[in-house]
Amino acid sequence: MAQPTYLTDHQARFLEELKDWLRIPSVSADPKFHGDVLKAADYLKARLEAAGVQDVELCPTAGNPIVYGEYRAGDDKPTVLVYGHYDVQPADPYELWTSPPFEPVIKDEKIYARGACDDKGQVYMHVAAFEMMMRDGQGGVPCNIKFMFEGEEEIGSVNLELFVRANRDKLRADVLLLSDTGIIANDVPSIEVGLRGLSYHEVEVTGPGRDLHSGLYGGAVQNPINALCEMIASLHDANGHITIPGFYDNVAVLSDDERTELNKAPYNDDEFKQSIGLPDTYGEKGYTTIERTSIRPTLDVNGIWGGYTGEGAKTVIASKAFAKISMRLVPHQTSDEISQLFQKHFESIAPQGVVVKVKPHHGGEPVVTPTDSVAYKAAADAMETTFGKRPIPTRGGGSIPIVAMFKNELQLDAVMLGFGLDSDAIHSPNEHFGVFNFLKGIETIPHFYRNYAAAESR
Amino acid sequence: MAQPTYLTDHQARFLEELKDWLRIPSVSADPKFHGDVLKAADYLKARLEAAGVQDVELCPTAGNPIVYGEYRAGDDKPTVLVYGHYDVQPADPYELWTSPPFEPVIKDEKIYARGACDDKGQVYMHVAAFEMMMRDGQGGVPCNIKFMFEGEEEIGSVNLELFVRANRDKLRADVLLLSDTGIIANDVPSIEVGLRGLSYHEVEVTGPGRDLHSGLYGGAVQNPINALCEMIASLHDANGHITIPGFYDNVAVLSDDERTELNKAPYNDDEFKQSIGLPDTYGEKGYTTIERTSIRPTLDVNGIWGGYTGEGAKTVIASKAFAKISMRLVPHQTSDEISQLFQKHFESIAPQGVVVKVKPHHGGEPVVTPTDSVAYKAAADAMETTFGKRPIPTRGGGSIPIVAMFKNELQLDAVMLGFGLDSDAIHSPNEHFGVFNFLKGIETIPHFYRNYAAAESR
Repeated sequence: MAQPTYLTDHQARFLEELKDWLRIPSVSADPKFHGDVLKAADYLKARLEAAGVQDVELCPTAGNPIVYGEYRAGDDKPTVLVYGHYDVQPADPYELWTSPPFEPVIKDEKIYARGACDDKGQVYMHVAAFEMMMRDGQGGVPCNIKFMFEGEEEIGSVNLELFVRANRDKLRADVLLLSDTGIIANDVPSIEVGLRGLSYHEVEVTGPGRDLHSGLYGGAVQNPINALCEMIASLHDANGHITIPGFYDNVAVLSDDERTELNKAPYNDDEFKQSIGLPDTYGEKGYTTIERTSIRPTLDVNGIWGGYTGEGAKTVIASKAFAKISMRLVPHQTSDEISQLFQKHFESIAPQGVVVKVKPHHGGEPVVTPTDSVAYKAAADAMETTFGKRPIPTRGGGSIPIVAMFKNELQLDAVMLGFGLDSDAIHSPNEHFGVFNFLKGIETIPHFYRNYAAAESR
Repeated sequence: MAQPTYLTDHQARFLEELKDWLRIPSVSADPKFHGDVLKAADYLKARLEAAGVQDVELCPTAGNPIVYGEYRAGDDKPTVLVYGHYDVQPADPYELWTSPPFEPVIKDEKIYARGACDDKGQVYMHVAAFEMMMRDGQGGVPCNIKFMFEGEEEIGSVNLELFVRANRDKLRADVLLLSDTGIIANDVPSIEVGLRGLSYHEVEVTGPGRDLHSGLYGGAVQNPINALCEMIASLHDANGHITIPGFYDNVAVLSDDERTELNKAPYNDDEFKQSIGLPDTYGEKGYTTIERTSIRPTLDVNGIWGGYTGEGAKTVIASKAFAKISMRLVPHQTSDEISQLFQKHFESIAPQGVVVKVKPHHGGEPVVTPTDSVAYKAAADAMETTFGKRPIPTRGGGSIPIVAMFKNELQLDAVMLGFGLDSDAIHSPNEHFGVFNFLKGIETIPHFYRNYAAAESR
């Protein structure tokens, strides 16, 4: 294994540059951070230019700009479209962070900050890897690269799709490369080859026209919070199956062999529970934890609120109750189909005395990527070089809706060369990214380009 | 009907003094208003002194002080203990108020402010009525009066009970008079003779030790919000009955005649629904709306929260979910008994994969007061004089736990001479109190004292 001298010499700077970027709270979901989202885009543009990417531009959209830049190695070289996002999840609840989410610190060899892993840290691996290829004297950049980083991934990538449709020629490429996923463990490299889709809704249940005194009115009116709870409870049966009619109709059924193969991935129940402080695992009857988080669809309430939630006691019957409810989808469910089934069903189960509204948020399609492609092999070989072990193909539980969108719009297959860990607490307080993982990503990416260029020009 | 000249001359000042008092946000549930709670006590003390009450003092407790003062008419006169409270409910959600909750305004002949009716407005009727008796030349104050106003009614009157126990002699009286209830309508006077009790709890459901990404973990862990919803939903059956084992064991069953009598109170379903913007009434099968809000116990969720409740979408599985759940009790349920049944049952229905904690808040006992007493008759006669109609005895749905406490500790029966309306939105945004009701209270109270003194000395 070659000594990565350039990386060793420059890793401290790469970490500082990432930390500078993480200090900008680019939360796309909350309008009050809009200025910071734009600052984060500017910062990324400047870093790409400094690394040697040509013609970096901020492409305007109806929402946040797309940071786009190209490196042209030559017409005879294959072209890789690199995707990532510079926006981050909201950081609340802030009080559960052990250090402020937008003041990155390195503790126990991990970078703690919102976006450290998802996805600024992983995007910055690509910036650093590109700089390294340009300057380390190991043969330069062997592929044409088109960098495209959006600022709306955490709010549904609505404008990205329009941008892609309007720029099919500009974005023409041979493969999509992205780092927004993870590996099983630092000594168990893996590559995700499946992702779940998403259907996300906000529901509103309205009872009386105003908040009521629970003594004067209690017993005579449908309480919207109780009603919402009843509706949510009815969405699962006693076996953990989802009760929405038609929900499972299009779910791909894996063969026994496929399930056996899937369950060969390392999994230890005690370690799993311990890693997330879980009293017990729980899920759909008849499936293992690995299956429940990969090949089976789910329904979870992501947030609920209504009535008095302050200190002490208030004897009120709320006028309204709300919940955010999302479903993870698997092949061959589609986001549109499931969103329609959910909305129709949820409205139909409204009990007497309340009115129910369902507002769909963004969705995304489930996807399975090929493991027999030149690009997958280039990525697996790259990881084998840098980790010293052949990576395991896995199917992840998360959703990256744009992967299906790129397939539909540009006929591009994706390689999900991610370096995070499930324990990185993305979307949670105390998100972090291992320094090992950040550096391993920077080290691995150039191998992918070299393997891919060599195979494609064979 | 005598012309109440003194009241006519001074009503504008009484309203201004009440408004000054309402400007002080005496929210007892929230520590940040503690200074204002003390200010509201001082204001009340000063007004009682100005009206002519002797020896007004702020009696310290472990919590907020009790404002106490006496008027001594003579040893041959009956003694009335007047109770009320100067603390108010929290005002949130502030954004639903059409004018700020602590900037009282009179609109459409109603005073709008937090506490306008519950209970500052009704307490101030007693201050003004006392002043009027002292000065209107109609014979002076015919009873001994002990005024006792607490500052913790909205948080469970915890320290009041200790104060009462420690001051039995000081508080010795013939009857308890309070104005913290209402009448059916301005042209349908009524007196509450029954109140429901209360058992109030906060519950906490914990699943994983930290918030999780719903994609990576969804399907493999019990979601505490879904679990909480399932638990809450199971607390009622399809007929609206409460499923806690033993819950109804001690509920007093009314005879058919008693139920017929109860249902004679004016009630119009359309008006009821319209008054609170209700799509439909809903409640326990087999009972009318009047019965559901008076002689039947209830269970309502007063607040629920967990997970992401901000703008947009966050794909998170929360570590914890919370709810505030209260039950209204009827004779002969007791708060202790029901709290124990609830806690035991709620913990027992925790589904696999979550841990449940139940934290009891304050409770209160249900009560029925006599309608054949001298004091009740004095109150009914007073209302008949000022309203021109005999008041209807009603059983209210709310809880004033101290009424049962005074009965137990001091063997005092209560007369609940309240002047509010159900539509006053107490505990809700836009609480208000009719100027008619405020003035009618001031006018009526002296008649009560005169009737009561005359009957007791007969």
